[in-house]
Amino acid sequence: MNTISEQPATASPAALNTSPLPPAFLAALQQRFGPGQCSTALAQREQHGRDESAYVGVPPPDAVVYAESTADVADAVRLCAQHRVPLIPFGAGSSLEGQLLAVQGGISLDLMRMNRVLALHPEDLSATVQPGVTRMQLNAALREQGLFFPIDPGADASLGGMAATRASGTNAVRYGTLRDNVLALEVVNAHGEVLRTGSRARKSSAGYDLTRLFVGSEGTLGVITELTLRLYPLPQAVVAAICGFPSIEAAVRSTIATIQYGVPIARCELLDAATVRAVNAHAKLGLREQPLLLMEFHGSPAAVREQTEQVQEICHEHGGADFEWADTPEQRSRLWAARHQAYFAALQTRPGCRAITTDACVPISRLADCLLASVADAEASGLPYFLVGHVGDGNFHFGYLIDPHSAAERAVAEGLNQRLVSRALALDGTCSGEHGVGLHKIDFLRQEAGPVALDAMRSLKQALDPHGIFNPGKIFL
Amino acid sequence: MNTISEQPATASPAALNTSPLPPAFLAALQQRFGPGQCSTALAQREQHGRDESAYVGVPPPDAVVYAESTADVADAVRLCAQHRVPLIPFGAGSSLEGQLLAVQGGISLDLMRMNRVLALHPEDLSATVQPGVTRMQLNAALREQGLFFPIDPGADASLGGMAATRASGTNAVRYGTLRDNVLALEVVNAHGEVLRTGSRARKSSAGYDLTRLFVGSEGTLGVITELTLRLYPLPQAVVAAICGFPSIEAAVRSTIATIQYGVPIARCELLDAATVRAVNAHAKLGLREQPLLLMEFHGSPAAVREQTEQVQEICHEHGGADFEWADTPEQRSRLWAARHQAYFAALQTRPGCRAITTDACVPISRLADCLLASVADAEASGLPYFLVGHVGDGNFHFGYLIDPHSAAERAVAEGLNQRLVSRALALDGTCSGEHGVGLHKIDFLRQEAGPVALDAMRSLKQALDPHGIFNPGKIFL
Repeated sequence: MNTISEQPATASPAALNTSPLPPAFLAALQQRFGPGQCSTALAQREQHGRDESAYVGVPPPDAVVYAESTADVADAVRLCAQHRVPLIPFGAGSSLEGQLLAVQGGISLDLMRMNRVLALHPEDLSATVQPGVTRMQLNAALREQGLFFPIDPGADASLGGMAATRASGTNAVRYGTLRDNVLALEVVNAHGEVLRTGSRARKSSAGYDLTRLFVGSEGTLGVITELTLRLYPLPQAVVAAICGFPSIEAAVRSTIATIQYGVPIARCELLDAATVRAVNAHAKLGLREQPLLLMEFHGSPAAVREQTEQVQEICHEHGGADFEWADTPEQRSRLWAARHQAYFAALQTRPGCRAITTDACVPISRLADCLLASVADAEASGLPYFLVGHVGDGNFHFGYLIDPHSAAERAVAEGLNQRLVSRALALDGTCSGEHGVGLHKIDFLRQEAGPVALDAMRSLKQALDPHGIFNPGKIFL
Repeated sequence: MNTISEQPATASPAALNTSPLPPAFLAALQQRFGPGQCSTALAQREQHGRDESAYVGVPPPDAVVYAESTADVADAVRLCAQHRVPLIPFGAGSSLEGQLLAVQGGISLDLMRMNRVLALHPEDLSATVQPGVTRMQLNAALREQGLFFPIDPGADASLGGMAATRASGTNAVRYGTLRDNVLALEVVNAHGEVLRTGSRARKSSAGYDLTRLFVGSEGTLGVITELTLRLYPLPQAVVAAICGFPSIEAAVRSTIATIQYGVPIARCELLDAATVRAVNAHAKLGLREQPLLLMEFHGSPAAVREQTEQVQEICHEHGGADFEWADTPEQRSRLWAARHQAYFAALQTRPGCRAITTDACVPISRLADCLLASVADAEASGLPYFLVGHVGDGNFHFGYLIDPHSAAERAVAEGLNQRLVSRALALDGTCSGEHGVGLHKIDFLRQEAGPVALDAMRSLKQALDPHGIFNPGKIFL
């Protein structure tokens, strides 16, 4: 594992200017952007030198540039290319795998001022937005059109950042991930040129799929400056339900049956008993402290009724309790807020801790095996942890709660993570369902992809970013 | 336009050995594969020197190799790489844009003997197949599991070929395209090495999306030797309906309203009156000869009933007639067979003709404008034509029926096509919804993508296929 806290990453392409910045570069940057858009103040650099990962001790970027337009991005990239300075695109700062850390110095390019919804096309179920628009901001803008953008990773992330990590979350079982819901991107390439990866058509076979290449590239191939996204009509009816199970396995078996039966369930989230306890303490919810499925159903009133009846029957067959319903918007909001706060609720059970999170995703038939072995491993370690799962996708997250300054605890947590990933890969799964690779999964990706596929990725990086200025040191070395 | 009939393509990378094959290469190929798997007989070469496009006069490949395993593919690629000989992957031969034509000579690598379903995972709704398995073969293998693979481009294409062109068809409005339904690929790269692009997990954020890069690359980046595909439960109820409209616009407006209303319609196909006439003559169907929507609804019996009621109401509001139903499997088969045979039915209205097909896809709000202007243009030209549309996706096909040996008619048809594509691009659409670029849309792609995106595609090609052996002369020059 890459353990920056103890051993800072130093590898960098020979030609790259790592910290400090070349004076000529800094002067040109300051001249182009002025004090309102360019800062070397420690507070701003530190604010851009961290994310939600558990890394500590990485120096912040050498400067922060606040882009306000595609032209700003293009000029910043051109200056970085000219002076061989690393550039890290920065959105809401909610990434989990160290994607935003300036491990080779350089500048952080903050895109949050590019926060306009540029166009709404209700008839086509699409919208074009700047990368700093957050998912909640977009949904607020859509509400009166009767539309929504479903992808919901929990955090109010920026849509540019969500595209960069190929984010998904609780709704993906029905609506897919960012991969499935981006029609086109505008991107600034490594030469500071602007390209568009697609049109507003719902599908295309016109050449290589540049859209999908930039989605999930974690800022290593270009800077996303516009996104055209797919939207969905707000469902006529939405009903959420909670069901308790005697075991994690019973909850997983119910989920498999639900999906095999073809029920278009919109959300299907697993919480283990300990996580329910933490959520109860944090959000005062009074949920039963046993493995729970939190579910949501979207459709016409009749369709939702039918879905809930089917799933209730399936859950009963697997030992599930009667459903508890959350059918008013307020009850549902409270429920999903609690689910989203599971991460922070768990952190509060151990003040001062950080979570080392796992993100494996396995074929759903293997999920119970993978979960149960990983639970046993975590229990044996003695580390506190939480467990939540987008169980309809086979994706789950353990969070091992460590003292971030304890090398011993970090080693235990990383050992658990390594064994969990090996288990997932052996079951034909992936090391990352939705968080991306960043720094934290570089070794896992090598293990998962194998040398030939990893070489293909390296070739693509070299082809599109020949000087390696875009977010260097991430995804692979 | 690339008009090979009059002006054979001659451009080729300097280092490539175009026809005839280097003797040392041919000797090595024959030694490795023997007469049972390698042929230079004219009949076999000619069989691999054509597709369903309207090109005539392109010389066939210099040899045909029949791969029976991934190892065969790897060895064929290694020999081609060593001797700088072009290699064209060949499946069912049903591509429409000249993808399979050996415009720079070389070998055709026939993958149809690699036709085994390697693994079925009903619980995970996935299957792994070799590239020569056709969609009908796969669906026959799935039927007793209660599952199906929905993508249906009409022809009984090979799944490898469907992935290579990012195919879709009548079901895409509900189930997406090949892009959305491939979990992972095994690919032989330009060095003859084997790589796997993903796992069986339903989603992943582990590195660059190699799967989506190879999907739609038309054999220019590697040879697909295995596909892991998403499957779906066979719907409990399937109902098809036909509705006649006073105008194309009324049919399109009904479709827009259906999709905006969130009805999960499974198929929504437009036929213009002339095409209905051709289909009636060909399949003896007795359909009303006016613009028709052919629709299909999937779900539980109650859900299907609700969907059909909603759509019937929407259609009535737009001047649609009462639905005619096709609810037995036999009636439905007959209806969709007729739809799929529209192409051949139209060809039969003018014996000896070939169709120059268009494939534009536009945002659905622009579809009526694009269609009506293109109908007017086609009517004014005097050329016979047909018109069908995957109207729920904004994708439609004109087929201009030309005498393939008449340069004048070809020029008229290509002029119609060019104006149609310009119209689609001006409406923020794409030149290809599902057929790919091949030879026929090289100029259109240049117009659509623009120089920066096209350069990115060229860089990717150069990175993954440095000697340009894979299907040279396709997608871009």
